[in-house]
Amino acid sequence: MSQPTPDFSRGAAYVNGTFVPMSEAKIPLGDWGFTRSDVTYDVAHVKHGGFFRLDDHLDRFETSLAGYRLTPPVDRAQMREIVGRCVALSGLREAFVAMLSTRGVPRVFGSRNPHDCDNTFYAYAIPWLDVIKPDVQERGAHLLVASVPRFSSRSLDPTLKNYNWRDLSRGVFEALDSGYDTALLLDDDGFVTEGPGFNVFIVKGDVVTTPDRGALLGITRRSVLELCPELGLEPRIAPVTFDDLMEADEVFTTTTAGGVMPCARVNDRIYGNDRPGEISLRLKALYWQKHAEGWHMTPVNYDDPERPFAAGLTPEGEKRP
Amino acid sequence: MSQPTPDFSRGAAYVNGTFVPMSEAKIPLGDWGFTRSDVTYDVAHVKHGGFFRLDDHLDRFETSLAGYRLTPPVDRAQMREIVGRCVALSGLREAFVAMLSTRGVPRVFGSRNPHDCDNTFYAYAIPWLDVIKPDVQERGAHLLVASVPRFSSRSLDPTLKNYNWRDLSRGVFEALDSGYDTALLLDDDGFVTEGPGFNVFIVKGDVVTTPDRGALLGITRRSVLELCPELGLEPRIAPVTFDDLMEADEVFTTTTAGGVMPCARVNDRIYGNDRPGEISLRLKALYWQKHAEGWHMTPVNYDDPERPFAAGLTPEGEKRP
Repeated sequence: MSQPTPDFSRGAAYVNGTFVPMSEAKIPLGDWGFTRSDVTYDVAHVKHGGFFRLDDHLDRFETSLAGYRLTPPVDRAQMREIVGRCVALSGLREAFVAMLSTRGVPRVFGSRNPHDCDNTFYAYAIPWLDVIKPDVQERGAHLLVASVPRFSSRSLDPTLKNYNWRDLSRGVFEALDSGYDTALLLDDDGFVTEGPGFNVFIVKGDVVTTPDRGALLGITRRSVLELCPELGLEPRIAPVTFDDLMEADEVFTTTTAGGVMPCARVNDRIYGNDRPGEISLRLKALYWQKHAEGWHMTPVNYDDPERPFAAGLTPEGEKRP
Repeated sequence: MSQPTPDFSRGAAYVNGTFVPMSEAKIPLGDWGFTRSDVTYDVAHVKHGGFFRLDDHLDRFETSLAGYRLTPPVDRAQMREIVGRCVALSGLREAFVAMLSTRGVPRVFGSRNPHDCDNTFYAYAIPWLDVIKPDVQERGAHLLVASVPRFSSRSLDPTLKNYNWRDLSRGVFEALDSGYDTALLLDDDGFVTEGPGFNVFIVKGDVVTTPDRGALLGITRRSVLELCPELGLEPRIAPVTFDDLMEADEVFTTTTAGGVMPCARVNDRIYGNDRPGEISLRLKALYWQKHAEGWHMTPVNYDDPERPFAAGLTPEGEKRP
């Protein structure tokens, strides 16, 4: 009797060498990726049936793996193939694609030595989602500067993507409790860092600034910095204080799972007409227009999931074949 | 055809309402307990076929749950029953018993709101293990004071047991790289906090001191503080500086998974004869002697796992029935 074809439409995952529906994707309770949050990851997205800046995400993931001293059992080319296959299997033209490596379960029972663990690689593609809901993006997000400070960069390198989110999660509760959509965290010295899963930008005149510290080197952040000149804007990476935030003309956030997301309020400060600012909206429009034009895009071959990046389909935008 | 009886001898776990062998215990890849380390836990131990200070562990777990605003689907009495049943099913007379609650997977796909998650409860009993290997305990552990500081208590409350271990894990790598057994972390102000999974004590004359900040309120730590007077020692909870550590007569660590574990070296400082100190060894001996005498012990009823704490079996030591 033949096996029924798995239903990958709600997401496809790669777990221990096999592809399973997202609902079946699990990790052992004893994996240090869970019991010590000893794991790093990256998240790319697919729009119009193609990955956006896939190799930039793989570059960053490799940097994170090195920082965590994690050696997954697959190489970069295989990871690329696996995430492509997750998308092709799911059939999703708009997706959120995660790749991750955990420390694993020690080979020697009870060992506390990370060298006794076989590191893992997991991946999955799930339907597109926005970190900040579309209707909230439409009216402009309301951010609360949380009282909890971001983990010090001396203890946790924020440029290595990780799940040690306790500070951010506390910030989210604080924001929701006060009727805000989400939180923004300052570091111990009072400088603006980032929010739960997104970078932040302030606009003052034609200068567009994002913090130089305490934050992930976001791929959407980089895209915005690259696109600014096309709109006659000056991109800047610099310290951002709480006062800078309050005195800005506009504020917006950026993330893979949402793109450019304008804000209308931070704490009791209301920007412009309590709506997304003009420059934020122009950057948002340009960001998505670039997607439609195939900028940094790697199309997925949905017809044959075993060859997710069929030869001849990679356009000029992508840096590497 | 009847199902084969599961083999629980290498550990029994409670997952989504059923008891499974530890090797089958898994959590969904999308659970925020994993993707945000939004989870709290506690770990008790079983020696001589009985739990040690089970209700103290449950008290602390309830404090952690409240701090994390987690509401598992089982109440305290049920949790107690579940961990007891894990032990009884495993048949283990010496075990390490974990209980944990994760934020869960959001009910609404893509939601970033913790209120959209159904919190979970997992538990498991596995064979006894020592955080610091028995042979290393025997010669006295070698600790390295790591260069990475412990997460600030302003960002992460160390008294709520959690898996945000990146700082501790970095410390472990640093220690192993330099030939030490494990690490000890200082806070941003230079005060001694704790190591990966254990508290620390210094002995100076007949005063036994453990740090007053940056550390878990360990159950073994509390037991040692309670036992000190029986040996004519003065227990103290106070700030401990790096210099205090260097100038101590003896150093030892404490944890549920290991008990009282003497140290022989911290950095380049060698204590006594490069062996466990006399007071550390007396405390260790008393701690285990108390176990043998049934101090704070709740015996497990291995004959009927469905009634793991059979009536009439709870001795005086345990505070609550």
